Amino acid sequence: MTARYDVVGIGNAIVDVLAHADDDFLVRHDMTKGTMALIDAEAADRLYADMASGIECSGGSAANTIAGLASMGGRGAFIGKVRDDELGKVFHHDIEATGVHFPTSPATEGAPTARCLIHVTADAERTMNTFLGACVELGPKDVDADVIRAAKVTYLEGYLWDREDAKAAFVTAAKLAHEAGREVSLSLSDPFCVDRHRDSFLELVEGHVDILFANEDEIMSLYQVDTFDAALQHVRGHCKVAALTRSSKGSVVVSGEEIHIVDAEPDVTVVDTTGAGDAYAAGFLFGYTDGGQNDLAHCGRLGGIAAAEIISHFGARPETPLNEVVAAKIG
Amino acid sequence: MTARYDVVGIGNAIVDVLAHADDDFLVRHDMTKGTMALIDAEAADRLYADMASGIECSGGSAANTIAGLASMGGRGAFIGKVRDDELGKVFHHDIEATGVHFPTSPATEGAPTARCLIHVTADAERTMNTFLGACVELGPKDVDADVIRAAKVTYLEGYLWDREDAKAAFVTAAKLAHEAGREVSLSLSDPFCVDRHRDSFLELVEGHVDILFANEDEIMSLYQVDTFDAALQHVRGHCKVAALTRSSKGSVVVSGEEIHIVDAEPDVTVVDTTGAGDAYAAGFLFGYTDGGQNDLAHCGRLGGIAAAEIISHFGARPETPLNEVVAAKIG
Repeated sequence: MTARYDVVGIGNAIVDVLAHADDDFLVRHDMTKGTMALIDAEAADRLYADMASGIECSGGSAANTIAGLASMGGRGAFIGKVRDDELGKVFHHDIEATGVHFPTSPATEGAPTARCLIHVTADAERTMNTFLGACVELGPKDVDADVIRAAKVTYLEGYLWDREDAKAAFVTAAKLAHEAGREVSLSLSDPFCVDRHRDSFLELVEGHVDILFANEDEIMSLYQVDTFDAALQHVRGHCKVAALTRSSKGSVVVSGEEIHIVDAEPDVTVVDTTGAGDAYAAGFLFGYTDGGQNDLAHCGRLGGIAAAEIISHFGARPETPLNEVVAAKIG
Repeated sequence: MTARYDVVGIGNAIVDVLAHADDDFLVRHDMTKGTMALIDAEAADRLYADMASGIECSGGSAANTIAGLASMGGRGAFIGKVRDDELGKVFHHDIEATGVHFPTSPATEGAPTARCLIHVTADAERTMNTFLGACVELGPKDVDADVIRAAKVTYLEGYLWDREDAKAAFVTAAKLAHEAGREVSLSLSDPFCVDRHRDSFLELVEGHVDILFANEDEIMSLYQVDTFDAALQHVRGHCKVAALTRSSKGSVVVSGEEIHIVDAEPDVTVVDTTGAGDAYAAGFLFGYTDGGQNDLAHCGRLGGIAAAEIISHFGARPETPLNEVVAAKIG
C-alpha cells in the first residue's frame, strides 16, 4: 500500500508555558534541572502561581516532532488527547496549521487540556513540570488503524509509558504498524522515565522498535552503564537503527556494523533547549522516510539542523520553516 | 498623599496570538499593514482557522506598558477586564507575576477573554485583528478610586475610545486623578483609532492630558497634517508633555519651549515591532515618575532602551528584565 503519511506520532497533547527562572527557583521547588516531572492539578496551580510571566505555545514531545516533520516538508499525522477547552483549541489549531492530520476527538468532560510548565534557566536548560490533564483519556480506542497502516513510520514517545491506557494504545499501534509492514520508532524521552520503566523499555527495544531515539543520559540509564561508549556497544544490534543525541557533541547513528558520528551544527547561540530532541527526531525521520534509509549520516545531519533551529529561540516549534533552514544549509 | 503606585494603566486586557504571515495573507484578508482592526467573534474564528501556528502571550497596549514599567523597577497597577476562563487566568497570572497590582474582578459570564491575532511579516511589522471579548464589560464601576488617587500618573490607551462604557471609565479615572493632584497620560494607540475619534481626542488632549504619547502617523492624523514637523508645531503647548515616537528615527519629546531629539538605540536587530510604542511609554513613564520630570531627554532615552528590547524578539512583553537592560546601557 502506498503510504499516505511519512510519520504518525502518538503522544501527550500538551500546551507549554515557558518562563525564565533562576537556579534558586528550581531548588526551592525541588526540581532536577533538565528533566520532566509529573504533577497533579493542585501542584500545577501552586507552581504556576509562583512562576514568572510566560508565553504559551503548543508542545508535547511527539507532537513537536510531527510538527517539525511537517515543517521539513514531510506528511505527518498525530494522535493525542486534548479537552474541548481554550487551550485544547490552541493545540488543535497549531498542529493542523502546520499541515498535520489530527484525527483524535477532544475529551468533552474531565480534566482540562494538559500543560507543561517549563522553566528556562540562564544556561538555556529547560526543566519541566507536566500536568497531564486530558491526556489521561488517551487509550487504544483513539488509535486510528487506517492512519497507522498508512504511515511509513509510527513514532511513539516514552512519556506514554507512565500510564497504562496510553501504553496499551502504544502497543496497539506498534502491532498494527508491523502487521502492515511499517516501521516503529520510539523516543526514550527522559532519563527518569527510563528509570521508571527500564525492563519494559528493554523488552520493547529488543522486540518492537526499529528506530530508537535517545540522548546520552537516557541510553546510559537504559543499560545502566556509566559511559556513552558502553551504552553504544549495548544498543548496537539491539534495534535496527539507533540515533543517539549528545547536545553540543552532535549525534551518533548506529545500525548494526554501520556507525556515523555526526557533528553538531556550528555557530548556534543556544537560547532554550526545549524541544531539541524532538526536533532532531523530526529532521532524522524526514530524511529517513524521504528515501534516506540508506544514508543515515544524512538523516543525522538533518536532525542536527532541525535541532539547531529550535534551540536558537524560545519554544519547541520552529520559528523559521525547517525546509527553508535546510535549503540554506545544504541546498 | 504619598503615591503607592507610579503609574496605573487602564486598557483592554488581551491575550496576543502571534504568528508569521506573508504579505499575500494580509492582502487576502483585507488588512492594512501595521494597524489594528476590531473584529467580532465569528470573524476571529474564521481568521484563526487560516492563521499559521502561533504563540500566545499576554498583551494589551496599556497592560504591556504597565508590565514594562514594573520590569523597569516601577510600581504599577492595571485596570482591565478578562473573563474567568483559561486565557483570563493566563493574563491575570502574567501581569501579577511582574509585580503589578490587578484589582479588576473577571467577568463571570458573557464573551471570553479578548484576543488579538497578530500577523508578523518578514519586515518585522505587526498587523493586528482584535476580538474585544470580555473587554466590553469594562465600565466606570471598575475604576478603583483608591488606586487612581494613589498613582502618580493615570495612563490610558486610546483604544478604549472605541466603546462608550470604557470611555466613561476613562473619563471617570481622569477626573479622579486630577482631583487628587495627579497627572493623566494618554497614548493615541493607532492612526485609525485617531481617525475614528479625532474631535474628542483633540478636546481631550487640550483639556485633560498632561503627557501624550503618539507615533508619527498618529500625531499627523490628529492634526490632519502631512509632515511630522507640522504636527510638532501643533502639539507644542497643546499639552504639558508630548513624547512622539518615530521608529528607527528615535523620538522627539516636547514640553512648551523645551524640545529634545532622542536618537534610537543603535545596533538593534528588529524581529517583531509588536509592543514597541507600549514599551517606549513604559520606559518614559518610569523615568518620569522616578524623579525625572525635569530631565525629559533621560525619560526619552529610557523609552528608547525599553522599546529596543521589545522589538528584538517575538512578543510585546520583555524577555530580559528591563532594569537589567538599562543597567547594562547606562549603569
